[in-house]
Amino acid sequence: MAFYVSSKSVLIFRLFRYGSFPQGRVCIHSSSICPTQEKPTLCSQENGVRRITLNNPKKRNILSLSMLDSLKEDLSNLDKNNLSCILISGNGPVFSSGHDLQELTTKTGEDYHKKIFSRCTEVMMAIHNCPVPVIAQVRGLAAAAGCQLIASCDIVVASEKSKFSTPGAFVGLFCSTPGIAVARAVPRKVASYLLYTGQAIGSTDALMSGLVSKVVPDDLLEEETEKIVEAIVEKSRPVISLGKAFFLKQIHQDLEEAYEQGEKVMVENLKLADTQEGLSAFIEKRTPTWKHTNQTAT
Amino acid sequence: MAFYVSSKSVLIFRLFRYGSFPQGRVCIHSSSICPTQEKPTLCSQENGVRRITLNNPKKRNILSLSMLDSLKEDLSNLDKNNLSCILISGNGPVFSSGHDLQELTTKTGEDYHKKIFSRCTEVMMAIHNCPVPVIAQVRGLAAAAGCQLIASCDIVVASEKSKFSTPGAFVGLFCSTPGIAVARAVPRKVASYLLYTGQAIGSTDALMSGLVSKVVPDDLLEEETEKIVEAIVEKSRPVISLGKAFFLKQIHQDLEEAYEQGEKVMVENLKLADTQEGLSAFIEKRTPTWKHTNQTAT
Amino acid sequence: MAFYVSSKSVLIFRLFRYGSFPQGRVCIHSSSICPTQEKPTLCSQENGVRRITLNNPKKRNILSLSMLDSLKEDLSNLDKNNLSCILISGNGPVFSSGHDLQELTTKTGEDYHKKIFSRCTEVMMAIHNCPVPVIAQVRGLAAAAGCQLIASCDIVVASEKSKFSTPGAFVGLFCSTPGIAVARAVPRKVASYLLYTGQAIGSTDALMSGLVSKVVPDDLLEEETEKIVEAIVEKSRPVISLGKAFFLKQIHQDLEEAYEQGEKVMVENLKLADTQEGLSAFIEKRTPTWKHTNQTAT
Repeated sequence: MAFYVSSKSVLIFRLFRYGSFPQGRVCIHSSSICPTQEKPTLCSQENGVRRITLNNPKKRNILSLSMLDSLKEDLSNLDKNNLSCILISGNGPVFSSGHDLQELTTKTGEDYHKKIFSRCTEVMMAIHNCPVPVIAQVRGLAAAAGCQLIASCDIVVASEKSKFSTPGAFVGLFCSTPGIAVARAVPRKVASYLLYTGQAIGSTDALMSGLVSKVVPDDLLEEETEKIVEAIVEKSRPVISLGKAFFLKQIHQDLEEAYEQGEKVMVENLKLADTQEGLSAFIEKRTPTWKHTNQTAT
Repeated sequence: MAFYVSSKSVLIFRLFRYGSFPQGRVCIHSSSICPTQEKPTLCSQENGVRRITLNNPKKRNILSLSMLDSLKEDLSNLDKNNLSCILISGNGPVFSSGHDLQELTTKTGEDYHKKIFSRCTEVMMAIHNCPVPVIAQVRGLAAAAGCQLIASCDIVVASEKSKFSTPGAFVGLFCSTPGIAVARAVPRKVASYLLYTGQAIGSTDALMSGLVSKVVPDDLLEEETEKIVEAIVEKSRPVISLGKAFFLKQIHQDLEEAYEQGEKVMVENLKLADTQEGLSAFIEKRTPTWKHTNQTAT
Repeated sequence: MAFYVSSKSVLIFRLFRYGSFPQGRVCIHSSSICPTQEKPTLCSQENGVRRITLNNPKKRNILSLSMLDSLKEDLSNLDKNNLSCILISGNGPVFSSGHDLQELTTKTGEDYHKKIFSRCTEVMMAIHNCPVPVIAQVRGLAAAAGCQLIASCDIVVASEKSKFSTPGAFVGLFCSTPGIAVARAVPRKVASYLLYTGQAIGSTDALMSGLVSKVVPDDLLEEETEKIVEAIVEKSRPVISLGKAFFLKQIHQDLEEAYEQGEKVMVENLKLADTQEGLSAFIEKRTPTWKHTNQTAT
């Protein structure tokens, strides 16, 4: 603590560095989608679930340009026929502390800064437009662009000890881009509190404000997240996929237009072989057997 | 339980059939608005309150085509001069389990499917555009189109034991149309959880997410709902009616346009005889006597 | 209590007059921005914080035309170079009970009514468009236009004993203009409950619905509000100011457009001398020293 010059700077420092300590890297790669050399993320895909892990715990899973590059890669090559959902989590005690401030000084230069924010947008839009649901599992702090990342996901499961903040103004860099995702996830009174004060909110406030879907005890975080993953995996993939595609479309339509198109989506949905199998199974009180294809019922 | 072939199918079955058991039909018709023969709803109107009751508890108040037809009829012939509000509730332990899956197989055919979803939209839009407030009283489960129904109402009072879900994907029919109403009622993180996992949320989560207006103890559900009904009934009808008309209009306008028109609405509102009576009564510390007409003050 | 003619009128009366009792006027003026004679608000500015206090506790800080005039004046002449944020609070046990109903009878006339609502909109839009964050500190009841006032602020800190309502329909004047701000702050189920029933909600419901940012114990209200003020004051003013300007812009843009512009805002933000000082201070683990200007880094 002798390094710190004032109690205020300790506070600022902690808001970003919160919980930083070394931790062994555990490689959980089980597929060949993502090469392992030097990548700051781990990525594997099995049984329709792609698992992406922010894996730079020593640096609080900072969203450096290389981390963003890695995430962009991990979020590509999505074959929705073989994929049910994507799970993003972080190794270590901090989910992610946001951009690497070392990369944002005048030393790196404007072109480099542009590249960082451009890549960041690509990652967020890849999540937003992902053809399958994207789940974030949050332990510890999700700060700045780290908060933007989770706010961009479809479903967020958080440990009761998790925290959320957009503290950019502390260092003079207002969280303008994180605010885009956050403002679309929480009421304005909460977004304003986060953005203007830079203070963190806890998991209960995050749940009340709509920033997270579910809060669970810290020691049950993985178990409860798996239940959500499993609930999606056990469904027919083309059904989830058509559902998400229409969901993303209709939320921007006016009510009448949404219903007009929604009716058609329902009628088309009923033509799928998997859907008729699902209805039969329900009526016959048995478990459905999915084809996971767009094949129509005969 | 011997009928079920697996624990998973039991789960799926329960998600839809939850709480199904026989219950005597109680007819509470007290007006001639809705003929009683075969109708799966009860409908009465008294003292400015139209009470519509989903009355097929044996089938969990399923939104079959006949139920939707009945609801559409019950939501018509609204004379706002004689009407203060509409209350929708369900007989039995389940509020409504949504569409009748038996009606959605290939046996009934595409034209029938189209008719079902078209009628369903008509019911939801009738609620949305209703000239007086529509209140839902929820006991038990509101699932799929049943959840869409309550999400379409203005005010929702729920028992603390109530549950809400959009489980369509379990049977291969994504809740695309229920999602239209749900996505306009709750944050995206909650809507996504409901739609992609199919899991139910309880009353507290529903309250936090904005899906319901108020949660009350189960044994006080009717009493607390009546307080809300009474609070609306005791007000001047044209005042509530002009208020709702402008509310529905302004929520889609930008802020400046809304205020520009809102100012005019307030000035016009003040010209009503009922309004000047209300102000006089307030100033004179007495109870106002409403005309319930659009008559202007002299 | 002998004055009241019925229990219902007592209720109505209390909903508006709630907590009315005489209280000494305390002048806290410390600057020359706002002349003190007859003004129903107190206004002072120091260390970048403008403090505006509704100061007519005997009349429950009623938003009379003179109060609205006073607020409009207090919200003008904002030099964002010298200003970090604005804090609005109320003297006495009621934050504000809304418009002065005495001013809304036919005696005052249509032109006067128009002037009141026009001035009210000016005040609300001045808060909404304010170049710096506006914080409301709420103790007691915020009713009708008083609720509109707090709903228009960026951040709302409320005592756990505070209440919020839009009871206009009780006196025949629907809260149409308050509903504009309230509908943009809370879910429709909550706005409808407030507007159609006229019933108040407490601080916990207000927090869950997004109407307030933070609820604190009553005896810590001032202390906790000051923490929020301080958190904003300690940041670089042009950074907060550019942040709010973009926040207000992006919330109305579609996601892609918002990100496209947001990237540029971030890159420009990084060019500020204050920002580079902030980053250096963070890296060097010291407290930043702000210039509070738009000067670019060299």
